[in-house]
Amino acid sequence: MGKAAQIEHQSVATINDELAWRFARSAAVTATSLCSVAGFRDWFAACRRTEQLTVDRIPFTELVGWEFDDDGNLRHHSGRFFTIEGLDVRTDFGFVEHWQQPIINQPEIGVLGIVVKEFDGVLHFLMQAKAEPGNIGGVQLSPTVQATRSNYLRVHQGRPVPYLEHFLDAKPEAVLVDVLQSEQGAWFLRKRNRNMVVEATGPVSAMPGFCWLTLGVIRELLRQDNTVNMDARTVLACVPWRIDAARAERGDEFTRALARGLDPSAAARHGTAEILHWLTDLKSRHELRQRLMPLAEVADWRRGPNEITHVGGKYFRVVAARVSAGQREVDSWTQPLLAPVGQGVAVFLAKAIDGVLHLLVNAKLEAGVLDVAELAPSVQCQPANHHDLPAHRQPTFLREVIGGALGVVRYSGLQSEEGGRFQHADNLYQIRLLTADFPIAEPPGFRWMTPAQITNLLIHSNYANVQARSLMACLLASW
Amino acid sequence: MGKAAQIEHQSVATINDELAWRFARSAAVTATSLCSVAGFRDWFAACRRTEQLTVDRIPFTELVGWEFDDDGNLRHHSGRFFTIEGLDVRTDFGFVEHWQQPIINQPEIGVLGIVVKEFDGVLHFLMQAKAEPGNIGGVQLSPTVQATRSNYLRVHQGRPVPYLEHFLDAKPEAVLVDVLQSEQGAWFLRKRNRNMVVEATGPVSAMPGFCWLTLGVIRELLRQDNTVNMDARTVLACVPWRIDAARAERGDEFTRALARGLDPSAAARHGTAEILHWLTDLKSRHELRQRLMPLAEVADWRRGPNEITHVGGKYFRVVAARVSAGQREVDSWTQPLLAPVGQGVAVFLAKAIDGVLHLLVNAKLEAGVLDVAELAPSVQCQPANHHDLPAHRQPTFLREVIGGALGVVRYSGLQSEEGGRFQHADNLYQIRLLTADFPIAEPPGFRWMTPAQITNLLIHSNYANVQARSLMACLLASW
Repeated sequence: MGKAAQIEHQSVATINDELAWRFARSAAVTATSLCSVAGFRDWFAACRRTEQLTVDRIPFTELVGWEFDDDGNLRHHSGRFFTIEGLDVRTDFGFVEHWQQPIINQPEIGVLGIVVKEFDGVLHFLMQAKAEPGNIGGVQLSPTVQATRSNYLRVHQGRPVPYLEHFLDAKPEAVLVDVLQSEQGAWFLRKRNRNMVVEATGPVSAMPGFCWLTLGVIRELLRQDNTVNMDARTVLACVPWRIDAARAERGDEFTRALARGLDPSAAARHGTAEILHWLTDLKSRHELRQRLMPLAEVADWRRGPNEITHVGGKYFRVVAARVSAGQREVDSWTQPLLAPVGQGVAVFLAKAIDGVLHLLVNAKLEAGVLDVAELAPSVQCQPANHHDLPAHRQPTFLREVIGGALGVVRYSGLQSEEGGRFQHADNLYQIRLLTADFPIAEPPGFRWMTPAQITNLLIHSNYANVQARSLMACLLASW
Repeated sequence: MGKAAQIEHQSVATINDELAWRFARSAAVTATSLCSVAGFRDWFAACRRTEQLTVDRIPFTELVGWEFDDDGNLRHHSGRFFTIEGLDVRTDFGFVEHWQQPIINQPEIGVLGIVVKEFDGVLHFLMQAKAEPGNIGGVQLSPTVQATRSNYLRVHQGRPVPYLEHFLDAKPEAVLVDVLQSEQGAWFLRKRNRNMVVEATGPVSAMPGFCWLTLGVIRELLRQDNTVNMDARTVLACVPWRIDAARAERGDEFTRALARGLDPSAAARHGTAEILHWLTDLKSRHELRQRLMPLAEVADWRRGPNEITHVGGKYFRVVAARVSAGQREVDSWTQPLLAPVGQGVAVFLAKAIDGVLHLLVNAKLEAGVLDVAELAPSVQCQPANHHDLPAHRQPTFLREVIGGALGVVRYSGLQSEEGGRFQHADNLYQIRLLTADFPIAEPPGFRWMTPAQITNLLIHSNYANVQARSLMACLLASW
């Protein structure tokens, strides 16, 4: 990388190209001297047995260090971590022009970082078995480092974060990915994390609770429900990869179309300049005014002793939990969690256009988004929030997706959102290949993009939302 | 463009390349059947005679439609245009950790758009002689369209904005530039405008007050003080261009280095991935907390009957003006203006590194910036705000620049900031070529970048601030 990094922009394509093929080689390998799928399963099962957290719901009054202030906002006495406040949203973007809701306000930027290293010529990813209070399954596979700023500044006097120095003291030429990416816009106000991949050249050993995995093994694990956590998925989404010609030829039509869609030189329905113009146009035409307000005054939400709920029982609840652990920064603690009401869906509709796979992206506004709209899956919502609405007010394609009538499922998995903030928040993630007769004309707010186009935008912040990025990781497991 | 737009990302470089050479050809032409420098001067002098505005300072009480609300914020009764509010800023970025100041809050996005069209094979820019109340010289050269959203939605019941349809109804393949870019972060809260260049293929005639100019003529005009306005400069900055080999050979060493620096394939000191990593690192390590607050409660600022001033006489004043015009949307109006205290400087230090011109960019935090920091000139400040500070607390390179000791001046011009909001705000814009012995090692917060690297980032929002973009336009006139 040292020499390559001296070469400039036009060659960024070339550098990324070389990197994409290195990751492609790792994706083709499912067993090395360091890892295998079966070996992982045994190790991970053991981690799940030993690393479990005990999580108990408690009334708000039993939260330690957390309290409701005069505005009814829920804060930690240190001023750190996060607050739960009220948000007033006005926009002319969708059907609803004005609403209020609780929102998590966490302005600090955490690190989600994966150390990669070549063993026997194959890139391995250093992954961690990490327990989070809200996780389905307790322990999930997370990046090497998954730390809020409070974590790594050791606000709660915990243990130092292992491997953190690989990211905070990285040599510039070792940094393969470094970009701020958004988190759930429906639940967080402008929250972002730093997504990093750093290549180690010196010796790095896997500490207990950590393991080296090829991208090929991770690909298999993405096919299991609730195993690869959100933080790992968003970092993996920022990694470029390819499918080589030989594998494409051995694959089916979807695989061949995907191989072309991953190639930045393939013909796309819209040029990137056209996509940027479309986004700029949307952002300019629409207004989004976000104003923090006292949580106590938020319309249509009620606070009880145990939870804050929407009067219609929709969206989510804010709850409190006591968490006990053996090997965490501190041995036990209490914290608020946001518990969604019902499972979500996040679906990319895919179509081969002139033999090149395209994904149907939707420009989506969410309450806490930084810049009006981000690229989202073709369908992304909690269906329960919409079932009482007339068909024309429901999200585009939602009924067809739930009805199962739309396309052939190439990927389907239940995946969790961040278990440090969200209680049992999971989405049904799907990638569905549409048949040739599906119209190429896009509904308003939608555009066909190749996976390569999306990946290329992911070196910049705030283009694609976290659900779209999760699906970009799941694309690894779609063929 | 229609066919070209079907080709994808890797070819974006190619498309931009072709476009850059088309603009380069326009930059080489200073006289056509439609325009010449001398012809422009006569026409522009006539415009300055006939289009002048009469601007009178008035006390705040004589503002019509504007009033101070209970918080002391200055608002228009329609809720449109902009407000002047208080801003509380906390950050660990620079020397000052906490301050409060008045700020202009104008969340709506305006359009700054230039129509370009080929005549006899040469791209011409449709420019407008436009009077603004705060302009030095009254009339300056502005983009084809320079309209706030309030303007073009005709909130003040003015005349329709000419040529607006070229931008709002543009065919995607005609759009050459379309990006949201920031305005002055010291004075505006997260303000952005939409910078557009649209190529017309059908007939377009220049209405009175408009003229077609080649980039070669505009280059000459950039050498005149206070002629090409800020809005035109920021749009021009987003346009890629080159210097061809023949002209480079005829030029001096600076010109040859600049020609290489404009070439995206030239060897740069830092790869773009490295630059993005540096920026992400800065944004992650530093916090910026911006909170709107009542203007009446802002510390160290006082409101009198005629102006709002800093107790130390620094920074700027908020004043009120009555403006009378013949040919504006309405014939006369009153409005607040922000009047800076003293002239500013904005300087790019330039250095040939292995024969390739590099500019020394500074990652700068300003009060109203959207995302912690943007790329700024090597030196950018109002010197008067710093003269009482000890040397080590003054901006890096400021003393050397003011002392005139640093490098050879390749461009120097007094240029105005936006005259619709700022009263006689001007900066001394300079590009200075450093001698070979100037150290290549960068001070903290600085990086060498080639002009091509900066131009390539300008297809995305919020990378370079408005002063850096102004200098990128002035670079056209530096050789």
